[in-house]
Amino acid sequence: MISISYFDLVKERDPAVKNNLEIILTYPGVHALWFHKVGHFLYRKNRFVIARVISQIGRFFTGIEIHPGAKIGPGLFIDHGMGVVIGETAEIGKNVLLFHGVTLGGTGKDQGKRHPTVGDNVIIGAGVKVLGPITIGNNAKVGANAVVLEDVPDGATVVGIPAEIKHIGKAEKSSL
Amino acid sequence: MISISYFDLVKERDPAVKNNLEIILTYPGVHALWFHKVGHFLYRKNRFVIARVISQIGRFFTGIEIHPGAKIGPGLFIDHGMGVVIGETAEIGKNVLLFHGVTLGGTGKDQGKRHPTVGDNVIIGAGVKVLGPITIGNNAKVGANAVVLEDVPDGATVVGIPAEIKHIGKAEKSSL
Amino acid sequence: MISISYFDLVKERDPAVKNNLEIILTYPGVHALWFHKVGHFLYRKNRFVIARVISQIGRFFTGIEIHPGAKIGPGLFIDHGMGVVIGETAEIGKNVLLFHGVTLGGTGKDQGKRHPTVGDNVIIGAGVKVLGPITIGNNAKVGANAVVLEDVPDGATVVGIPAEIKHIGKAEKSSL
Repeated sequence: MISISYFDLVKERDPAVKNNLEIILTYPGVHALWFHKVGHFLYRKNRFVIARVISQIGRFFTGIEIHPGAKIGPGLFIDHGMGVVIGETAEIGKNVLLFHGVTLGGTGKDQGKRHPTVGDNVIIGAGVKVLGPITIGNNAKVGANAVVLEDVPDGATVVGIPAEIKHIGKAEKSSL
Repeated sequence: MISISYFDLVKERDPAVKNNLEIILTYPGVHALWFHKVGHFLYRKNRFVIARVISQIGRFFTGIEIHPGAKIGPGLFIDHGMGVVIGETAEIGKNVLLFHGVTLGGTGKDQGKRHPTVGDNVIIGAGVKVLGPITIGNNAKVGANAVVLEDVPDGATVVGIPAEIKHIGKAEKSSL
Repeated sequence: MISISYFDLVKERDPAVKNNLEIILTYPGVHALWFHKVGHFLYRKNRFVIARVISQIGRFFTGIEIHPGAKIGPGLFIDHGMGVVIGETAEIGKNVLLFHGVTLGGTGKDQGKRHPTVGDNVIIGAGVKVLGPITIGNNAKVGANAVVLEDVPDGATVVGIPAEIKHIGKAEKSSL
């Protein structure tokens, strides 16, 4: 269920990790992805209700709510995770880092594709709400408690309510 | 426990719903209201401790904390719900929509009535904190992660920290 | 496990409390500290994995995640508590009040001491993120949903994203 490289990824993400057993036992963000694998498999077979029941069991144990329809790329790490909500039509690229309280949600204005698309290597800080069928570009960073309502360009760092660009391009690891 | 019209209301609120069974099984916001019905009944009989125990059991299963003293009108829908806190003297009107992470709380400055009064048809976005014995007017909307410390007029849309009026009156469905 | 004076402290903090039994049964913020006492004891004995397992069991029951390495002073009260995250190298002084959704976290830029130090008598509002090895001075107050990235002086009230000083010194109880 966890590949060797995923252990390495978690250790790189979280300096507090002591060993692999700790990751298996005590990372709700890892457990939530196990539930999502099962739920998403059933969702693609059109078993919608049982898929949602598994998603909600996952929410009960982890505090993380991932709709079984969401498409999640490899290397996603959800740190702490309590209060995360990921909507049905959200799409997440490779090696994304989400903190607790992040919402990839809808605005109520759209039909069909209603939730965000998140690029590769994106970092989204604690408490951030990303709303609507917008795109967060590759390598972008979103600061804590921001509310993102428009597309974010590749490599940009955005902060605030509504989120505005603070800088674009390579900088030191941003404050999340 | 759920009327036909409440099923319709949830389906209107959440485009991801597939059928009624899904609503009964997988909507923590619906389950939280069941716990609150029992807790509020006992609270009005002055059975305060047992009422609070039931409220906390509801919090454990749903992630939604509603004080048994809170007065809640018909048609409330709490979407996702993790982290919602509704205080003892809060009052909620008809057909209100709250997202996860919403607080209807106190500031520590007031006695007696310490929590907000929310009008009819109000929509409060994810992560919003409404603090103090203030009033959110009918048909008002509050944008995600806002902090509301003053009365909001009927029909207004407010955003930010502290929340300020973005516009008043009929507009397209606002971004939450 | 609870001293007489701690009952008094909770009653002073939360006007909704009716009696001591209610505090023992229905305050997740109190329960989380019991788990932390055990976890922190084991952590200091270098029993890191079991310490983290106990911390995560506490998170499951309370919605509050306190890393077993965190150093917590007497008189801490965590109100409501859902979504609170306290990091491994965080330090909290005496008689601190934290609301739900507060994060004492890291930015990813630091090694060793990575999390905040919070002074005595500090009040941190719901949804606040305090990030990095910064110091919140004694008697400071942080308004709801603020993101604190720099030191806060003694007695200051800070609000917003990023948090800025609203006033310093004795004022009426601030809006949280």
